[in-house]
Amino acid sequence: MSATERPPLRGPSAQVPVITVDGEGVRRRRDRLATEEPLEIRASGPGQPAVQVAVTMRTPGHDFDLAAGFLVTEGLISSPDEIERIRYCADIERAEQEYNVLTVELRRPFDAGGLQRNFFATSSCGVCGKASIDQLEVRCAPLADGPVATRETIRALPDALREGQRIFESTGGLHATGLFTDKGELLALREDVGRHNAMDKLVGERFLAGATPLAGHIALVSGRTSFELVQKAAVAGIPILCSVSAPSSLAVETARALGLTLVGFVRGQRFNIYAHAERIALD
Amino acid sequence: MSATERPPLRGPSAQVPVITVDGEGVRRRRDRLATEEPLEIRASGPGQPAVQVAVTMRTPGHDFDLAAGFLVTEGLISSPDEIERIRYCADIERAEQEYNVLTVELRRPFDAGGLQRNFFATSSCGVCGKASIDQLEVRCAPLADGPVATRETIRALPDALREGQRIFESTGGLHATGLFTDKGELLALREDVGRHNAMDKLVGERFLAGATPLAGHIALVSGRTSFELVQKAAVAGIPILCSVSAPSSLAVETARALGLTLVGFVRGQRFNIYAHAERIALD
Repeated sequence: MSATERPPLRGPSAQVPVITVDGEGVRRRRDRLATEEPLEIRASGPGQPAVQVAVTMRTPGHDFDLAAGFLVTEGLISSPDEIERIRYCADIERAEQEYNVLTVELRRPFDAGGLQRNFFATSSCGVCGKASIDQLEVRCAPLADGPVATRETIRALPDALREGQRIFESTGGLHATGLFTDKGELLALREDVGRHNAMDKLVGERFLAGATPLAGHIALVSGRTSFELVQKAAVAGIPILCSVSAPSSLAVETARALGLTLVGFVRGQRFNIYAHAERIALD
Repeated sequence: MSATERPPLRGPSAQVPVITVDGEGVRRRRDRLATEEPLEIRASGPGQPAVQVAVTMRTPGHDFDLAAGFLVTEGLISSPDEIERIRYCADIERAEQEYNVLTVELRRPFDAGGLQRNFFATSSCGVCGKASIDQLEVRCAPLADGPVATRETIRALPDALREGQRIFESTGGLHATGLFTDKGELLALREDVGRHNAMDKLVGERFLAGATPLAGHIALVSGRTSFELVQKAAVAGIPILCSVSAPSSLAVETARALGLTLVGFVRGQRFNIYAHAERIALD
């Protein structure tokens, strides 16, 4: 996928083509998804070069609010008078990054020395979603063809996951990820307050058991599907990723690029296929 | 709050005292919440010192799976044969960190040089929840007394937020944070795929308008309440933080320490008060 093929996903939501499976029916339509794009926040003082403060996966819109609010809630600024201006960076290397990098210019020196203490490293994508997809395509072994799952198998996944979630029933506060065979048999289940952690725990359990890569398997996540979850599933070799909720725009884009089958809104008799429908038996 | 007062919240869920408001009734009971604790993942090669790879807020349990899975899905290891052993660190400074730091010892050199490219900084807490709470108490100006909200005001918040969420209705994929007066009037609303971003956008909007700190206000978040959301609300001066879903154990602990009123599961005629009930009129 070259840079020019990237759809313009700059608003707070984006239209994507989707296949909706409902009972025995199959409909092709368009669906609106929340846009997910990386934002790099930089800060500078008078005469200082801008330094990177954070990169966050966000929905475009109100980016200046986001940058200012982040600096406030992390205790880095305390008065609006400290800000000279906020602007998108014009000196970025690729056109598609133009609205994904901004600098908060302060009227006083910005001390980046404390950043190491206040911030921590987490899994990510780099500054630009496109760039990170390029990296992923290198890093991921190609996903194998198949398996092909029936619609009955997909529909049965949420109940099987819930049956396995004793902790969830008692707290209501945990994300879960389940790993299934292509026939829908639950193989492993992990829970966490962080949905990325639930996926990592699941992959780690299989990995330590010598059972990776996870070709031929289906994963179901209890929450929304982000870029990062698609990335993690693909690196682990999982070819079909399902969710009871919505994917982000970048999750769909990444799944398409990596050859991963992405299914969302698995509820009752319905589900939506957002990418690589060839692994779902629709006939 | 000293280190010795910290309750032992080491399992996947923890019991906390809660006040449940239901219609005209008020009940004091105990509730189970998902545990949230930081985990620092380190890696080392033969004869190499361990380097920090990531710190993540996670639910304790299956920590070795989490560490291995994180290294796998970030492309840092590809075979279980690369791992000599995984162990909790014994040389940590404070006893309560004992199960919050672990090292993956590899059989081959670990190249930390690529970490800067693969990981990014995000808002955080430091290695230890306790340590970060201590830091917060320094950084946060004390939250003002009041306001006192009625139970009718709290119950009306979710509907008011939903009314304001046009984008949410069309995508189903966005978190929202609303800011309200102490009478429940919606002042501002921000949405994002990331719940922390929705809070930062809201705080940033008010900040740039010269309207911070936000004493006297109520915030409602659409998802679960994490440590980080409590931290951000408190730094912004918001005294009452509500959610339609569950808080984590560390969110409750942090709210108690910072003097923030934390309300969860605002649904229909019911809600739960997890910390500082003095700002809710119960008589």
